[in-house]
Amino acid sequence: MAPVKISIIGAGSAVFSMRLVNDLCKTKGLSGSLVSLMDIDEQRLNGVYELAVRYVKELGADLRFEKTTSLETSLHEADFVINTALVGGHAYLDKVREIGERYGYYRGIDAQELNMVTDYCTITNFNQLKFFVDLARMMERICPNAWLLQTANPVFEGTNLISRCSKIKVVGFCHGHHGVIEMAEALNLDERKLDWQVAGFNHAIWLNRFFYDGEDGYELLDRWIEGGNLEGWKPRNPFDVQMSPAAIDMYRFYGMMPIGDTVRNGTWYYNKDFETKKRWYGEPWGGPDSEEGWKWYQKQLKTTTDAIAYLSANRSLKLLSLNTYLKFLPEGTVPKEMMREAEIFSSPDKLSGEQHIPFIDSLVNGNVRRFVINVPNEGYIEGIPDGVFVEVPAVVDKDGWHVERIEPKLSEKVLKFYLWPRMLRMEWALYAIMNGDKSALIEFLMRDPRTNSLEQAEGVIEEILGLEENQKMRLHYEKGMKL
Amino acid sequence: MAPVKISIIGAGSAVFSMRLVNDLCKTKGLSGSLVSLMDIDEQRLNGVYELAVRYVKELGADLRFEKTTSLETSLHEADFVINTALVGGHAYLDKVREIGERYGYYRGIDAQELNMVTDYCTITNFNQLKFFVDLARMMERICPNAWLLQTANPVFEGTNLISRCSKIKVVGFCHGHHGVIEMAEALNLDERKLDWQVAGFNHAIWLNRFFYDGEDGYELLDRWIEGGNLEGWKPRNPFDVQMSPAAIDMYRFYGMMPIGDTVRNGTWYYNKDFETKKRWYGEPWGGPDSEEGWKWYQKQLKTTTDAIAYLSANRSLKLLSLNTYLKFLPEGTVPKEMMREAEIFSSPDKLSGEQHIPFIDSLVNGNVRRFVINVPNEGYIEGIPDGVFVEVPAVVDKDGWHVERIEPKLSEKVLKFYLWPRMLRMEWALYAIMNGDKSALIEFLMRDPRTNSLEQAEGVIEEILGLEENQKMRLHYEKGMKL
Repeated sequence: MAPVKISIIGAGSAVFSMRLVNDLCKTKGLSGSLVSLMDIDEQRLNGVYELAVRYVKELGADLRFEKTTSLETSLHEADFVINTALVGGHAYLDKVREIGERYGYYRGIDAQELNMVTDYCTITNFNQLKFFVDLARMMERICPNAWLLQTANPVFEGTNLISRCSKIKVVGFCHGHHGVIEMAEALNLDERKLDWQVAGFNHAIWLNRFFYDGEDGYELLDRWIEGGNLEGWKPRNPFDVQMSPAAIDMYRFYGMMPIGDTVRNGTWYYNKDFETKKRWYGEPWGGPDSEEGWKWYQKQLKTTTDAIAYLSANRSLKLLSLNTYLKFLPEGTVPKEMMREAEIFSSPDKLSGEQHIPFIDSLVNGNVRRFVINVPNEGYIEGIPDGVFVEVPAVVDKDGWHVERIEPKLSEKVLKFYLWPRMLRMEWALYAIMNGDKSALIEFLMRDPRTNSLEQAEGVIEEILGLEENQKMRLHYEKGMKL
Repeated sequence: MAPVKISIIGAGSAVFSMRLVNDLCKTKGLSGSLVSLMDIDEQRLNGVYELAVRYVKELGADLRFEKTTSLETSLHEADFVINTALVGGHAYLDKVREIGERYGYYRGIDAQELNMVTDYCTITNFNQLKFFVDLARMMERICPNAWLLQTANPVFEGTNLISRCSKIKVVGFCHGHHGVIEMAEALNLDERKLDWQVAGFNHAIWLNRFFYDGEDGYELLDRWIEGGNLEGWKPRNPFDVQMSPAAIDMYRFYGMMPIGDTVRNGTWYYNKDFETKKRWYGEPWGGPDSEEGWKWYQKQLKTTTDAIAYLSANRSLKLLSLNTYLKFLPEGTVPKEMMREAEIFSSPDKLSGEQHIPFIDSLVNGNVRRFVINVPNEGYIEGIPDGVFVEVPAVVDKDGWHVERIEPKLSEKVLKFYLWPRMLRMEWALYAIMNGDKSALIEFLMRDPRTNSLEQAEGVIEEILGLEENQKMRLHYEKGMKL
């Protein structure tokens, strides 16, 4: 048992925080730990704090909490810092997206070739990227030996940026690889008999290894496709795209299956407009990143926030009882996803599926486990420069991570037609922000197939720089400031 | 004195062949060498042979010739093979360009982002690229120790392709770096006081070092720009683009000056249509790669071919007399470029400026000289993978080439916004041809900003594959044949 201090930045994101608390309560080796909940939204922070304390009490777990709106306070003596904050919130994303659309950029200027995930902003959310760097540098000062577990998007740009701007140990986290399990379910395979690997970048991972009970899993996939399952395929929700026509089309071209959010990050021709998205990501939503899909997601978020508020306000409710969760919503209206969460929370031993707490446990207590994490390349993926963060399977113990040998290698097409172009866009974004170079931002957009003129690219950038929220961004680019 | 056998493949290209003959005659150390003129066009071959023999006789030089339409005969006992052949000739390029334009690709589908040079075909001229490989493999069999001096375009794709498909020693040649001298002339600088370096890929080189008499040459360039020279700038011919608005715009963005053909290889927004090209490359031609510029070039070629035919048919004409060249064209109509050639030919010691013969002399006789050549990267340009061919300054002696330390390094913007994207397109082209993968060809086009639909990209590729000249190409891609 080795108690640690874990600081959660952006802890007002209740579901995510409660998942971590859930996992902590159920991880014996981290008993006695201190969780620092940090958020600038005091109301949401109080709600989460209240819930967390009650939850721990009900479970009879040994966990202490502090809540603070001060980053410095939270970082004080932290061993692990989990950054999940979205600076500016969804309101800012909505605003810049609307500006982008006025200039002819459907779903906004951040909806870039091979990077179409709506809240994965690499161009417009300067404040978010800048915060990543500020946080890492503050850690250098306050808790220089702590680990930074980067969870907030964009994880790919973020981890690379942090590692280039600070000496803090940073690892990127995502759960995109769960797509392998979704795929196994679709193919009716028993998860326990799978032998799989994924590799690539965050939101850009590919199933390089796929065996089932000794058999070539790709043959099973081919049979699924040939059996007409693609034609009959319908998404259960906007995020259910693992077996979508887009995914299968990518598989056909790249020779390997895109996993998880990678499917959302296809080419422009899956994402040209709503009608096109529906064709590739299924009716009626056209995937999570269309106007309809994102509306669904926002609604889902709202339902969850309301649920959290309700639970938090009604202190007599038992958090460990599944009934509690069913009661405050009319029967039949509880979204499946929320039911899954409720089942986990109300169980005495189920973990959330987030990797953060098991990762910390492996590192602190040496409980060896397999993860899929974002770490600097060191020859793991051939053809990708060392130092660039790759998302790869790794075993973690007290000595840190041990990346598995990626076998078989990623296909040449994945490398040359997907990872490299994706990496280039990361490099362009980082060049722009690290050098305060507005011309680089504009050139980035000039390489976007939706751009028809210099005026269009300059116009949209100027309007975004003119937003009140972007005063720092404007100054940064006007003065050509370095990061 | 070390006589060698030099095989010129595509020797019917008279001016180029005569330049090499000129240089050979004036290079003492290669006296007694055998030049094998090889071309499949017998008529042109005879013309060149006739001229070459007469020229050598007039100069009293010691040089032997053979002419052949057989590649195998030409390669027999060759020490150096200079490949300058354009398979299919200009007629084929015109034909595929016309098809491309019908599908909405101005100047054809090979006119790609950062690769707009009209005869630098990386997608459609399968026969050309395939010939590169066939030639190299035939060399492996017939003259395995010979050097292949790759001159025919595309030099970048070609050298990389050859090196991946054979073990033949290959070096790429171009004279694009002469743009440095053009620039010096524009700035009124004495060439002898320059300290310069260029680095990059073929047709993608950048002036990383530029000092004049100890001073920072870039300050002189800035003064030239500030002095209003850009506004007053007019091209003297379509190829005169070194100081064009496009070049200066690239300099402003990349922080280094693009040199030679690099200027032609700007972004799509310099090259959108004829009007746009005129704005960036000057009136009235809009650079060499517009319809007007290319027409000018074709006319120029025709004049030269006629001149060669005339000289070849009139055996009594003295080749060493400048007067000869002036006589057969009405006064005042002799193009400046042809005058320059004539001056060189008619002089007893002037070299052509092509690097091939001096390179051979340096290698064979150890006469140390500086070149700008295309060789596999070995850390010369940081950030570019080893093995990829880079165009860099190198000193050559009996031991081979010694690449200069590239100092200062290329700017980060050159690397990330120019060389990498350009390299990616090379990789896409090579992937497609080396794997006979039609979907890769189509995807290549899907990444072209001019493509609006899959149907457009598929349509143009199918029509080009359907050409009679492309039977081998069609078969290659239908059967998924490897190279």
